[in-house]
Amino acid sequence: MAQKPSIPKGTRDFGPAEMAGRNYIFDTIRSVFRTYGYMPIETPAMENLGTLLGKYGDEGDKLLFRILNSGDAFSGVDFTDFTDGDGRLNSKALSLKVCEKGLRYDLTVPFARFVVQHQNELSFPFKRYQIQPVWRADRPQKGRYREFYQCDADVIGSKSQMNELELVQIVDHVFTLFGLDVIIKINNRKVLAGLAEISGFPDKVTDITVAIDKIDKIGLESVKAEMREKGLTDDAIAVIEPVLTLKGGHMEKISAMRALMEGKSASGIVSETGLKGLDELEELFQLTDAAGISQEVEIDLSLARGLNYYTGAIFEVKAKDFEIGSICGGGRYDNLTGIFGLPDMSGVGISFGADRIYDVLKGLGKFPEDVMTATRILFANMGAEEIRYLLPIAKRLRESGISCEIYADSAKLKKQFDYADRKSIPFISITGGDEMAKGVVNLKNLADGEQKSFAKNDIEGILKFVL
Amino acid sequence: MAQKPSIPKGTRDFGPAEMAGRNYIFDTIRSVFRTYGYMPIETPAMENLGTLLGKYGDEGDKLLFRILNSGDAFSGVDFTDFTDGDGRLNSKALSLKVCEKGLRYDLTVPFARFVVQHQNELSFPFKRYQIQPVWRADRPQKGRYREFYQCDADVIGSKSQMNELELVQIVDHVFTLFGLDVIIKINNRKVLAGLAEISGFPDKVTDITVAIDKIDKIGLESVKAEMREKGLTDDAIAVIEPVLTLKGGHMEKISAMRALMEGKSASGIVSETGLKGLDELEELFQLTDAAGISQEVEIDLSLARGLNYYTGAIFEVKAKDFEIGSICGGGRYDNLTGIFGLPDMSGVGISFGADRIYDVLKGLGKFPEDVMTATRILFANMGAEEIRYLLPIAKRLRESGISCEIYADSAKLKKQFDYADRKSIPFISITGGDEMAKGVVNLKNLADGEQKSFAKNDIEGILKFVL
Repeated sequence: MAQKPSIPKGTRDFGPAEMAGRNYIFDTIRSVFRTYGYMPIETPAMENLGTLLGKYGDEGDKLLFRILNSGDAFSGVDFTDFTDGDGRLNSKALSLKVCEKGLRYDLTVPFARFVVQHQNELSFPFKRYQIQPVWRADRPQKGRYREFYQCDADVIGSKSQMNELELVQIVDHVFTLFGLDVIIKINNRKVLAGLAEISGFPDKVTDITVAIDKIDKIGLESVKAEMREKGLTDDAIAVIEPVLTLKGGHMEKISAMRALMEGKSASGIVSETGLKGLDELEELFQLTDAAGISQEVEIDLSLARGLNYYTGAIFEVKAKDFEIGSICGGGRYDNLTGIFGLPDMSGVGISFGADRIYDVLKGLGKFPEDVMTATRILFANMGAEEIRYLLPIAKRLRESGISCEIYADSAKLKKQFDYADRKSIPFISITGGDEMAKGVVNLKNLADGEQKSFAKNDIEGILKFVL
Repeated sequence: MAQKPSIPKGTRDFGPAEMAGRNYIFDTIRSVFRTYGYMPIETPAMENLGTLLGKYGDEGDKLLFRILNSGDAFSGVDFTDFTDGDGRLNSKALSLKVCEKGLRYDLTVPFARFVVQHQNELSFPFKRYQIQPVWRADRPQKGRYREFYQCDADVIGSKSQMNELELVQIVDHVFTLFGLDVIIKINNRKVLAGLAEISGFPDKVTDITVAIDKIDKIGLESVKAEMREKGLTDDAIAVIEPVLTLKGGHMEKISAMRALMEGKSASGIVSETGLKGLDELEELFQLTDAAGISQEVEIDLSLARGLNYYTGAIFEVKAKDFEIGSICGGGRYDNLTGIFGLPDMSGVGISFGADRIYDVLKGLGKFPEDVMTATRILFANMGAEEIRYLLPIAKRLRESGISCEIYADSAKLKKQFDYADRKSIPFISITGGDEMAKGVVNLKNLADGEQKSFAKNDIEGILKFVL
């Protein structure tokens, strides 16, 4: 019995149509990364589990795909070592014994590992981009996959806000090339820390930001209720509330926040951390004004972003005309490489969500029309003689960069036309004995039906017709 | 204690310099695949073990990387079920219980699985290329990695020799673009089967080809000794020997072989299979003659290739000026998709060895000089004012496709020059207060020291200078 073929849950095959769209996305992002001087690196799919464990929280540890040690992983393993008195197995300890490697979970931790491992070969500030798949043993569901690509750009070894600017410019450049209208939301972790400080609950910065983050979904009153539940006093909430309703341009928001951080809030507390965050935001917005950003950029004081390693600017990008989560995000981290023994290497990075961008471009019909056109000319197969006549012509066209095919089998013309149609090939050539006798090739534009004959050496003429 | 970072044995990090070379290789091969109408697909890194097991022989099964089932893989496993009477563990059975998925071992089996699974969405003949990593739990050694890329092109659903021709053209086109001289060796499995038939040992085709394959290394006498060892009679060897010493052009070799297959060998046996193989070879060489192949192409009757699924033409490519194994290989298989329930789908494919091609290009100094140049202009950071002045200029240059960087930090010029040097940036701009007052930018060609000033709006002039 033949096996019924299938792939693991949460993984995907990409056929030519999806690949065309995906390559358009990756190529566009890659070209912009390069334009700003970012260089590519690649790291192995497998990392030592020691590199990955403990970097993504307990939940992340559970979601790592572990690879059974090669060879005879279980030989010599004494299972009683991994069983407690009641005969219950310690599954976690046993899996560590038989699995030393795991699939990478993101590109950030491998990048930090790469920078530390190769620090003597790199020149800092080091600007790299990396476009590779990552794997997570999440429960598969709509839009959540166990294998997906990340497209990251990071610069490490520079504290200048110029880097933040550059990432904003990259975002602006990429989405403008895609023809999408987006809103680039910016906040700063130090401002969020400052907000917790002036509310009198510096330790509750996470609770506060988690609550604030929901304001769009649940509204102001529910956010206040949640903060109260988390132990914030009414006085503290009275300090935070005005921030949530701040209106105006970015310089107005910064001024209003600066007043609060300087002690003019209801608590009277001054936050140096908050003021530092506002200085950074102000510098960044002066730079974006000088550089000129086409897309909308705004300060969103409710933007928090989940990953705990961020310490400065944080970014998030939303599509304006399509309902979907954030399509790009990132931020500054002051000590990512510290865990691998290289402290004080501040970095800032951004990650594009290729799967969501694909959905947005497809949903809005923004893929360029010719993204799927690979082959431009199909030469119909009219027999062995005709093929020998066409081969040198096809060769010269290919050398000029034109993609063309000679139909391999002698089949009915209908079948050959169908092939051209299904592959969206725009030009077909039916060149038989008559044309050979005249030394010409026929070409037909399948879109408008226009037909033309060209001398077989007139490659220039053919190029003009089909391009 | 910080962890000392490392990666698993047999895997590699690729920094910007290696990536530049690798991307040049992949981009070149990809562009040629496209020119012949091949379309990209991608399959998941993980396949169900049922898809992979038994496809690569017992040795291959052992070299599959298995992935521990997500969640609590060992809970509920009764280890006594996997232990024999003597308390010895059946490691193989246990690993099948706790691992349902494995990392792909090549691109051919996943491609066959893809074709069968998506047969109703594909249009045949289906021409696809696929460039993705594969994983093998081989013992790591020089030049053998546990993770490496394969670059495959296959066409499936057509028996025409036009497909074989196209793959030869692709090989020719790719290596000509690389500036390498190669020899493209061609044989046909049916001819090898025919040789076994006329020797009177049709069942010993594998033994015969394995022995013949070694002629370059061990010489004719040792090949004969090996065949004798495998049970071939002196009469049989007397039939095979003349083939091994055949000289001449491809049409001469085909004629000589045809005579033998028609019964004119010492055994007098006629081989229909052998004759069919010779017909295929002859048709292919008529086509290569008509198309015009720049690289050397030869029939190598001792070419066997290990993979057992080949049934017709087989190819192998060797670099002429560099000592290394084959850098490209492939062949025709008549029933690859049969194992997944789709019989009678003949296909033919080719695979480029990117790692070896990298070594050859590097060893012969054939990488283009500018392959590493990413950024063309570094604007030195002379202060905040200067940066605001430069930002719109850099923006316009980037929009014209020029990669440029503004040094992010205010650092000594020496440090900024060092950065340009280490990144091989060919142009630097030192634009300070004087230039701002005049409304110009300075540019210096670091290769020849030429300096020029341009009006800040003269983007055309700058482009001309730096390109």
